[in-house]
Amino acid sequence: MSALRQFTLDGSFAMKRGTLQRPTFAYETWGQLNTERSNTVLVFTGLSPSAHIASSEDDPANGWWEDMVGPDKPIDTGRYFVVCVNSLGSCFGSTGPASIDPATGERYRLHFPVLHVEDIAAGGAEVLDHLGIQQADTVLGASMGGMTALAFAMLHPERARQLVAISSSARSLPFSIAIRSLQREMIRRDTAWQNGNYPPDAPPVTGMQLARKLGMITYRSADEWAERFGRERVTDRPPVDHPFGMDFEVESYLEAHAAKFVGSFDANCYLYLSRAMDLFDATDHGGSLEQALSRVQVKRAMIIGVDTDFLFPVEQQEELAIGLQKQVAEVVFHRLASIQGHDSFLVDMDRFRPVMARFFSG
Amino acid sequence: MSALRQFTLDGSFAMKRGTLQRPTFAYETWGQLNTERSNTVLVFTGLSPSAHIASSEDDPANGWWEDMVGPDKPIDTGRYFVVCVNSLGSCFGSTGPASIDPATGERYRLHFPVLHVEDIAAGGAEVLDHLGIQQADTVLGASMGGMTALAFAMLHPERARQLVAISSSARSLPFSIAIRSLQREMIRRDTAWQNGNYPPDAPPVTGMQLARKLGMITYRSADEWAERFGRERVTDRPPVDHPFGMDFEVESYLEAHAAKFVGSFDANCYLYLSRAMDLFDATDHGGSLEQALSRVQVKRAMIIGVDTDFLFPVEQQEELAIGLQKQVAEVVFHRLASIQGHDSFLVDMDRFRPVMARFFSG
Repeated sequence: MSALRQFTLDGSFAMKRGTLQRPTFAYETWGQLNTERSNTVLVFTGLSPSAHIASSEDDPANGWWEDMVGPDKPIDTGRYFVVCVNSLGSCFGSTGPASIDPATGERYRLHFPVLHVEDIAAGGAEVLDHLGIQQADTVLGASMGGMTALAFAMLHPERARQLVAISSSARSLPFSIAIRSLQREMIRRDTAWQNGNYPPDAPPVTGMQLARKLGMITYRSADEWAERFGRERVTDRPPVDHPFGMDFEVESYLEAHAAKFVGSFDANCYLYLSRAMDLFDATDHGGSLEQALSRVQVKRAMIIGVDTDFLFPVEQQEELAIGLQKQVAEVVFHRLASIQGHDSFLVDMDRFRPVMARFFSG
Repeated sequence: MSALRQFTLDGSFAMKRGTLQRPTFAYETWGQLNTERSNTVLVFTGLSPSAHIASSEDDPANGWWEDMVGPDKPIDTGRYFVVCVNSLGSCFGSTGPASIDPATGERYRLHFPVLHVEDIAAGGAEVLDHLGIQQADTVLGASMGGMTALAFAMLHPERARQLVAISSSARSLPFSIAIRSLQREMIRRDTAWQNGNYPPDAPPVTGMQLARKLGMITYRSADEWAERFGRERVTDRPPVDHPFGMDFEVESYLEAHAAKFVGSFDANCYLYLSRAMDLFDATDHGGSLEQALSRVQVKRAMIIGVDTDFLFPVEQQEELAIGLQKQVAEVVFHRLASIQGHDSFLVDMDRFRPVMARFFSG
């Protein structure tokens, strides 16, 4: 899952709190940079995806937004040079808590500095520098990636002409903080976590599974689950008399998906990225949301939210869109009626493709 | 927390699946049974409360619905004889997994039969029998208690003249099942659980704390938490550099409340009651909701739901109210605009008192 391209900074990288020596930044690209170097779409990801947003010649496996990025797709790689960054702090190529600290020769683990969304955004700026790109046409992200895109637009205002933030927010609210804090606690309470010092081949599997299941519960909507599962019982096994066997399809669905995730994501990286979302607050950059958003210098912005998202409620996207209107000449706000909740941007392609295509053809 | 009154059946008690020998049923009462024995309000509780609904001479401690039950309160104990039943399977007086099995002299633990909401309702009927009451004026419950009241009205149709169900439903949907299943898994995955065989003084504290925190997250609403906590940081300690210390007030609130719960509730009892809610489906009694509700013979019903409840969404109460209208002469349905989510009936007294008072004075 490591991104195809990487480079290592020859020196130090200042984080919001702390410094990294010679960090690596990983990314993937699609399409061609034009001669004016003006057609870049810089994409930041959510917490768990890698930089593999779409298939390519070098890696033909389907990416996590395969339907959105490619030739003649809404983000048309015949026209745009798409760069997707693996988040600093993640475990798919960029430096994070699972990487080796050059100062000690050991993994960083909990010695990694407290991670902020702003640091991930700064990593994106490093990738642009590395590619010799002064300004991206568009900086884009969904979920945590939307926070990162917003941070990028605030902190590097001259480096993006357009901003797209999907199912995201200008700050985390207590409900989402409580959910994520509990997910982190599930991992920390797993005795296998060992205060972050688990051996790479014996991670805190139980805690990660529980955390992932809670994540999945919050990524979709109750309505979708009612449609998908109803009260269907598990059919591939006889009814059990063990009082806590799996009774319902929804339970076995969660089990199967959590198992898949746990093998691929490092627990400490998960903890750092999860907390970065809680700590993010655009108002840190100016005292009020209005002040903070006045830093944004993009010419055009699109904010998308989904009615059934209860992790990043659509009111948060509306707040962001309204805030940006004072500053940005053209702000498009879409409130989509998807029933797949927070994850809609990954699955409800029939609703997302048209609005993305319209924006990127404009 | 054990209820003040108890009796032990002299014989066996048939459950939906399984049989108990000589179970104990615990309850408390307020007010006086009238000479016609016709003024009883039979109350079933949610998962975690005891039968101590209100203070009394025998136990002056405040009850969990102190503002609702008492002299000149909405359920006026000058007029009604209020009986609150400790649920079968719970740990506050009635027989449950933490009780001694007379056949073995050991705690039941996981040898307790699979518990169904219908069994809890049947326990309520035993309490009425014990008190020599043929028909309750009203059977009432909120949350799991509302499911139980409905089961009681379906299975013992001649034993209640009125039905009140609050923030409840005719069956659990996959979203709530997923939440509760995950709560149970948190407890089961705690190594201290030991497949249910933990010593009474060394319960699975970690699992119970995690489960309770998730419960609290789902009992309230995101809007209420935004109002209460905003992004307030924990103030009673210096900012910590430990990457996963507690940052936000909402985290320390959850911590404090979970700690309180864990000391008082038995883990196996929690597992049984939680799963009973998942298994409840009124349509088991007739094949369709319409068929099932046609069993109900009450003269009057009140169904109350709350806009911000996402564990028992208000659409479920609406479905129940509409279903009952075919059968019941007078159905009152209230959709209240409380922002405290599922727990509103416990805390938003200004909204709940008037509708309850109107119903019980009518």
